[in-house]
Amino acid sequence: MDLAEIITERLRRVTATVKVALHEPSFRGNELAYVKECIDTGWVSSVGSYVDRFERDLAAYTGARHAVVVSNGTSGLQVALELVGVKPGDEVLVPALSFVATANAVSHCGAHPHFVDSDRETLGIGVGALSEYLAQIAESRGGVCINKRTGRRIAAVVPMHTFGHPVDMPALLQLAARHGIDVVEDAAESLGSWIGDRHTGTFGRCGVLSFNGNKIVTTGGGGAIITNDAALAKRAKHLTTTAKLPHPWAFFHDQVAYNYRMPNLNAALGCAQLEQLDGFVRAKRELTQRYLAAFRDVPGATLFVERSGTRANYWLQTLVLDPALAGQRDAILAATNSAGQMTRPVWELLNTLPMYGTCAAMKIPVAQDLARRIINLPSSPQLVQETTA
Amino acid sequence: MDLAEIITERLRRVTATVKVALHEPSFRGNELAYVKECIDTGWVSSVGSYVDRFERDLAAYTGARHAVVVSNGTSGLQVALELVGVKPGDEVLVPALSFVATANAVSHCGAHPHFVDSDRETLGIGVGALSEYLAQIAESRGGVCINKRTGRRIAAVVPMHTFGHPVDMPALLQLAARHGIDVVEDAAESLGSWIGDRHTGTFGRCGVLSFNGNKIVTTGGGGAIITNDAALAKRAKHLTTTAKLPHPWAFFHDQVAYNYRMPNLNAALGCAQLEQLDGFVRAKRELTQRYLAAFRDVPGATLFVERSGTRANYWLQTLVLDPALAGQRDAILAATNSAGQMTRPVWELLNTLPMYGTCAAMKIPVAQDLARRIINLPSSPQLVQETTA
Repeated sequence: MDLAEIITERLRRVTATVKVALHEPSFRGNELAYVKECIDTGWVSSVGSYVDRFERDLAAYTGARHAVVVSNGTSGLQVALELVGVKPGDEVLVPALSFVATANAVSHCGAHPHFVDSDRETLGIGVGALSEYLAQIAESRGGVCINKRTGRRIAAVVPMHTFGHPVDMPALLQLAARHGIDVVEDAAESLGSWIGDRHTGTFGRCGVLSFNGNKIVTTGGGGAIITNDAALAKRAKHLTTTAKLPHPWAFFHDQVAYNYRMPNLNAALGCAQLEQLDGFVRAKRELTQRYLAAFRDVPGATLFVERSGTRANYWLQTLVLDPALAGQRDAILAATNSAGQMTRPVWELLNTLPMYGTCAAMKIPVAQDLARRIINLPSSPQLVQETTA
Repeated sequence: MDLAEIITERLRRVTATVKVALHEPSFRGNELAYVKECIDTGWVSSVGSYVDRFERDLAAYTGARHAVVVSNGTSGLQVALELVGVKPGDEVLVPALSFVATANAVSHCGAHPHFVDSDRETLGIGVGALSEYLAQIAESRGGVCINKRTGRRIAAVVPMHTFGHPVDMPALLQLAARHGIDVVEDAAESLGSWIGDRHTGTFGRCGVLSFNGNKIVTTGGGGAIITNDAALAKRAKHLTTTAKLPHPWAFFHDQVAYNYRMPNLNAALGCAQLEQLDGFVRAKRELTQRYLAAFRDVPGATLFVERSGTRANYWLQTLVLDPALAGQRDAILAATNSAGQMTRPVWELLNTLPMYGTCAAMKIPVAQDLARRIINLPSSPQLVQETTA
């Protein structure tokens, strides 16, 4: 058997399923009951008890003081960047290895993504390399971090916790503080991932979660801004709900703002999902153990595991091919997908997409190398829950 | 009894309810069945059969060739404006008498709202006055309509069909064509409203619907772009779904784009609601008859009715006070709301809001006059359905 056949066979062994998706939601809790309540009471829309409850539950789970739910992660990230002061024409440091939303949110602020390399141990921003790079290209002018090459302000950095594996946040926070750069965490993939006893998304000024259909917890579509900063949370709520001032009947809005509300119907789904999050994380961590066992004797294909001191949600299970085998990636993707075992490469590096090709970027050898060798494996929690139920 | 007391008494007579909202959704069809199917099958998110079906059903209902569902009306309007070519720095003509979203969508494109007066007969853009105004301030430079005073391009006009009453679209289309200005209809309030046999939203290059919780049909939160232009519809779908090119596994996106998807869960609600739309419109038109009867002998307070040649959905029932009684508006709002009969003035005129105070604006005597005299009345379809069931 060649490597593609071996990997296909091992996937079949672990998933015990003929046709399996990359990630499917699991609705085995109070989803229908809560959604039915919305329909029965008529409270499906932008104000309702589940919106408030979901915000409280998210804050309680993550340990953030405040959570503001929004229509999705991209919108949340755009608003978060605006709230920390990113202005049109600024640059924002984002990993080249990320989903396109990370860069789009920057563009939606009128700012420019500035692409950063990755770290082999975390799959997130490589803090050491970024530090050396900033030492060369950045300078402080009156306390403002300026890219000497473009003359633009570097306003923020957006670490993204890839597949649920935490970035080295303590090191990144130090680096950002040294340069006077704000930190907004893209925690879209990392609900349920921790560094020590602190949840991802609570290290920066704020963090942004996603509840898209492929995430560990879904609201259909949705997101949240989490923060310990009460003033920022208040502005986030105001800016995402048309900036209307409270009044029994008058419509007075005091700034240009968004309708980025999460409907109560979707928040109801989220509340039911969040009740099951610990179980989802347990199942996904058990799935990692099964993949580890299945791939132990497959030379050249290594399962990516959490870094010491962190606890990952293992949102997407990740196989990393040895450098010598990178050329076989596409054959493996083709074979596994044809065999009904859905796998996926990592995203196209963002600086290679046509609309971002001219953006500032540091050299990204690690991201380029990882992008050739990563294969995501079927990751639904049900793959474990069904076989142990 | 003074006028406020009389109006309160008449509202109680029509609504036959002690505490009544301005507009509440009615879920008496397949809402729960369709939503349950989403949860049972796991298809709650951005791809799913209800998304496709809701788009087909909306196209069939409105007679538009294409419908693209989005996360809400504001986002839909922003994307529609982008698609007809509105660029940062352009001006877009919008009614001063509208919900703030009409102007915000323009701002989100980086363009400038330019405020226009209203018409007493339609409550929408006053085409005659706008024609005279454009004759003074606009000139064509190489086929492009330029505001001589600001030097900016006037790229588009956004008629909004207030409370479901259609703007005089044939006249506006003529005027816009004469000046080379694109027309994007804000049909957020007018699903179920027609001019002759053509649905509102199908006169301009495209139209935008809203399914917010207070609308005649709700998806919790959501909207749609409707158009007869196949290329525009295709670009709308692409631009609202992260501009990802189709591929079994690769993530290649070819432009800066949005995540403005409507989740399948919300589309399911929309499909069930749309099945009942004709009934909602009938109920709301019957409610108009009841208000007409109740207010027939109330001097100085006139129910606003549809213009000849149009058929309104009567989304919000509208009472217009005589000019001499405008000073009593706030007393009437206070009395009716304290009595549990929820009423509302029209929105603050957009050019009076702090963020839009410096925008270009024509003189708006009609909008200013109407804004002092309009009171919206309880308008839920159930107010009729419950008493006739």
